[in-house]
Amino acid sequence: MARTWGNFFFSLLDYKTEKFVIAKNKKVGVLFRLFQLGLIGYLIGWVFLWKKGYQETEEAIQSSVITKLKGVDLTNSSHYGLQLWGAEDYVIPPQGERIFFIVTNYVVTPNQRLGYCPEVRDRLFLKGTIHFIVVYSGVKAGRCINDTGTCEIHTWCPVEHGQTPSEPLLSKAENFTIYVKNFIKFPKFAFSKSNVLPTTNSTYLKTCRYDKDHHPYCPIFLVGDVINWTGYSFQDLATKGGSIGVGIEWNCDLDKDESQCNPEYSFTRLDSSKNSQNSVTSGYNFRFARYYNDAAGQPYRNLFKVYGIRFDILVNGKAGRFSIIPTVINIGSGLALMGAGVFVCDMILLYMMSKSSFYRETKFEKHLECYKKIFQINAVLLNFVNYNVDKLFSTLIRNIS
Amino acid sequence: MARTWGNFFFSLLDYKTEKFVIAKNKKVGVLFRLFQLGLIGYLIGWVFLWKKGYQETEEAIQSSVITKLKGVDLTNSSHYGLQLWGAEDYVIPPQGERIFFIVTNYVVTPNQRLGYCPEVRDRLFLKGTIHFIVVYSGVKAGRCINDTGTCEIHTWCPVEHGQTPSEPLLSKAENFTIYVKNFIKFPKFAFSKSNVLPTTNSTYLKTCRYDKDHHPYCPIFLVGDVINWTGYSFQDLATKGGSIGVGIEWNCDLDKDESQCNPEYSFTRLDSSKNSQNSVTSGYNFRFARYYNDAAGQPYRNLFKVYGIRFDILVNGKAGRFSIIPTVINIGSGLALMGAGVFVCDMILLYMMSKSSFYRETKFEKHLECYKKIFQINAVLLNFVNYNVDKLFSTLIRNIS
Amino acid sequence: MARTWGNFFFSLLDYKTEKFVIAKNKKVGVLFRLFQLGLIGYLIGWVFLWKKGYQETEEAIQSSVITKLKGVDLTNSSHYGLQLWGAEDYVIPPQGERIFFIVTNYVVTPNQRLGYCPEVRDRLFLKGTIHFIVVYSGVKAGRCINDTGTCEIHTWCPVEHGQTPSEPLLSKAENFTIYVKNFIKFPKFAFSKSNVLPTTNSTYLKTCRYDKDHHPYCPIFLVGDVINWTGYSFQDLATKGGSIGVGIEWNCDLDKDESQCNPEYSFTRLDSSKNSQNSVTSGYNFRFARYYNDAAGQPYRNLFKVYGIRFDILVNGKAGRFSIIPTVINIGSGLALMGAGVFVCDMILLYMMSKSSFYRETKFEKHLECYKKIFQINAVLLNFVNYNVDKLFSTLIRNIS
Repeated sequence: MARTWGNFFFSLLDYKTEKFVIAKNKKVGVLFRLFQLGLIGYLIGWVFLWKKGYQETEEAIQSSVITKLKGVDLTNSSHYGLQLWGAEDYVIPPQGERIFFIVTNYVVTPNQRLGYCPEVRDRLFLKGTIHFIVVYSGVKAGRCINDTGTCEIHTWCPVEHGQTPSEPLLSKAENFTIYVKNFIKFPKFAFSKSNVLPTTNSTYLKTCRYDKDHHPYCPIFLVGDVINWTGYSFQDLATKGGSIGVGIEWNCDLDKDESQCNPEYSFTRLDSSKNSQNSVTSGYNFRFARYYNDAAGQPYRNLFKVYGIRFDILVNGKAGRFSIIPTVINIGSGLALMGAGVFVCDMILLYMMSKSSFYRETKFEKHLECYKKIFQINAVLLNFVNYNVDKLFSTLIRNIS
Repeated sequence: MARTWGNFFFSLLDYKTEKFVIAKNKKVGVLFRLFQLGLIGYLIGWVFLWKKGYQETEEAIQSSVITKLKGVDLTNSSHYGLQLWGAEDYVIPPQGERIFFIVTNYVVTPNQRLGYCPEVRDRLFLKGTIHFIVVYSGVKAGRCINDTGTCEIHTWCPVEHGQTPSEPLLSKAENFTIYVKNFIKFPKFAFSKSNVLPTTNSTYLKTCRYDKDHHPYCPIFLVGDVINWTGYSFQDLATKGGSIGVGIEWNCDLDKDESQCNPEYSFTRLDSSKNSQNSVTSGYNFRFARYYNDAAGQPYRNLFKVYGIRFDILVNGKAGRFSIIPTVINIGSGLALMGAGVFVCDMILLYMMSKSSFYRETKFEKHLECYKKIFQINAVLLNFVNYNVDKLFSTLIRNIS
Repeated sequence: MARTWGNFFFSLLDYKTEKFVIAKNKKVGVLFRLFQLGLIGYLIGWVFLWKKGYQETEEAIQSSVITKLKGVDLTNSSHYGLQLWGAEDYVIPPQGERIFFIVTNYVVTPNQRLGYCPEVRDRLFLKGTIHFIVVYSGVKAGRCINDTGTCEIHTWCPVEHGQTPSEPLLSKAENFTIYVKNFIKFPKFAFSKSNVLPTTNSTYLKTCRYDKDHHPYCPIFLVGDVINWTGYSFQDLATKGGSIGVGIEWNCDLDKDESQCNPEYSFTRLDSSKNSQNSVTSGYNFRFARYYNDAAGQPYRNLFKVYGIRFDILVNGKAGRFSIIPTVINIGSGLALMGAGVFVCDMILLYMMSKSSFYRETKFEKHLECYKKIFQINAVLLNFVNYNVDKLFSTLIRNIS
């Protein structure tokens, strides 16, 4: 028994190789070779060289963005007089977030106090008739004044009704600079980097301005430039406001040197597109108030309706590094697909060639078939021998007798 | 030599097809066909039709969210009197972020001035005994007044100790509207879209309210509705505050038309779940202060402790588009798995059938085995011929002699 | 005809098994078995046990973070006198965001009024010469005073020129506590969890402090600890400010129990690294202003330049759950790779062994080759028989005659 098992395991070490039948059919042969070449070309050229299929990738980038703006503008509004806008005023919020808003235009309603005043309405065209909807309102106080249905409301008076200036009041906003500091990390690969490259020195940082061609890694942007690169002009956005996405793309091949992994910037307008004439969703504004108490302790406020440009720094990225698993998957499944080629070529050979039935018989061995054939052949042979022997004897006997 | 190489390359164009042995065993044959059918069904049905395995997917969606709230409420608090809350007051921060907070309840401690007053303590049950921990404090001034251990502190006096109103003061917050503008981009496919669909016109935008069944693409939400859809009521959240996640899911099949790629909204409460009775983590409040100077230039402030609902617009999405690589991987690995079926069926055929030893012999050809068999057969044949010849001769000789 | 098709389909149920040739070559056999074992070991050990290749993973984690700070500090600045800093003051923004800033140091320029005063300049070394750049500026008013080129500007006067205190004014900020509430969701698996574990009770939450070894799931962090864990000291960051990333990593195997899916915290300094001496990008400060009106209604403001620590809670995570598709892909491509092993072993057997030409002939069956051989053998045999018969006859005839 032990010997039997021993033999069995020993026989496992015999190499078994598949038996092939050579079909001397050049058509199918060339077809199969072309398929093989195509598959190998696809694997090496497309999957490995172009798509880097040997890499494990990570797209869940971790990103931290800090921004800082510089620039000052002096405005003169009819309602509010002279006002100086520093970064602490026109950047909202001021603490340097990833998403920030720059005031470019505004309407101030100064010295509002709680009281009663008529509401403001706006016309709305709905199914052919004109409706009035309340634009900015307080709480209805019950006294309705005239035929338009406008009522007196309990609110901060006077109600805001200033016209938005047709020209941006902060016209120098175009020259403000945005300093973007972006720290990224690919957690899977424990790789981190900053868009302020380690080679950057402090002097360069104080004077450079980003430019795709000349200063692609300078992290300081001119507001006017950014707007122009989206395909719009400062005037388009500054009056009614707008929203701009600043993309930072990190496309890192971690098999190469770290210094090859650099940010690429892109600029898009988010609230509007040149194709659609849908102006409903464009523009950007909001209100905030500064509260004061007068000498008697009574509250009053200045209400600001600010228009401006909202910047959204959108960071995305992909990192790849060699890994055995995707390599095996790509090679393995490519090789497996060769099986599909074999199947197709076999079908052609076995069913679409003139000698197909012959190929079928040789490919598919009916077991014992070989031995049967041998017996048949030998039987023929035997008959032949017997026949000859018989003939010889009969000749012989005839001669003898 | 050149001729030899020529022959070699020429022979490469011969198609070589594997030799198969037909085992006329219907059991294993049916088993193998069932396995093949299952695998093909899995590949076509599950992998390709259901899971769209022919698509390259991207889950790293880039998203920019802008929000705008509308609505006004007038409150009357005992400490602070009448107050009008517009969006500029109850939305924090006011600039229309992805994450925003709506004030629904508040406690004001007006006219605080820097000075000395006793601290406020709260009871804490720890390991059976009562401890007192400082709830809101300043810096200890050294004078401790009584047996409870309460000390005088240097802080803004009077210290906040107002009770949270048991009913939300901003009861109309339920009717505030939230306008959500979401711009998304799948960077891998350079595909971008907004939740304000291009078909939406400005009139619809001014009057519609989101409703899963009737207005699934209206980007304007009623605060009360949103809360109800999470399974809670406005009263549950408004008094002590709460946190709500508004999910926007983009599930885009980019092989279809762009108009098929639409947002789906979902609503969940984030700070509490109905299952867990863990109320520790529920609620949402924070403090902020408004600073004033009196006529003498001395600072004083109004401290607001605001309770309210924090909305977090959580955007996620997945886009897929046909790509050759995942298609090849799925088909290839599926085909390769057929090899596992072959292996199992072979094992059954070769070791678990009554005629197994016979199948083994036919499947595994011991080389020269065939020729050996032929020699054996021929030897038998030869013996037979010799025997007959011998017999014939002996008969002949017997006859002659 | 029907019978023919019936036969065809019936024959499809015959199991066809490949024919193998046993090459009794132990070298190649052992090589192939080693390759097989390696591949199986890789598949089971690396792909399935270590890398959990049977799981579908999701890296697009949805996360909502709420933070709350506690602690008070009293500061005494020469310009501004005593000031009490509560969370409502030193946390910017105060509403408990994922990204927040804690004031640790500041310079106040109180009672600024719009007017005319000389600008402040800073030296910049550029290509060997000293340039002066404007640090904080207003709008040039035209009157330039002296040789340095300093001009009078229209701005808030007096211009900020206070020195940053060399010691952090909020020295107690080290003891402030940060409560982090993180709610996560893996949309693909509809799995959600919070870092405040359901087992946490309210007493524990009021007293615990995070500690990697003893309280790994306590969501309350001491500012000083967090800074120390990044490898820096509070003094390093507090004076000039800095940026700290608090990583929360969720690595969830959803095939296991939900209670096994817990957050892991990590702490890094984002604005500087110990390796690079590039101090350009380190530090963190910004300005904000508090506006007042005097009794005459004239505006003035206090300008704060605040230095401090920016905390960025960076949540990332990965969830995996068993799925048939990656399992099939990994097994399938692994099996397919076995084909590569077969190819290599075949090449060795057929071209690098002493008996290679013999193996080639047995592996690749030239069709009809077998029968030809049989005919050759039989021809030999026939000759032999004929020869013997001839010899017999001639002997016989010789005897007779």
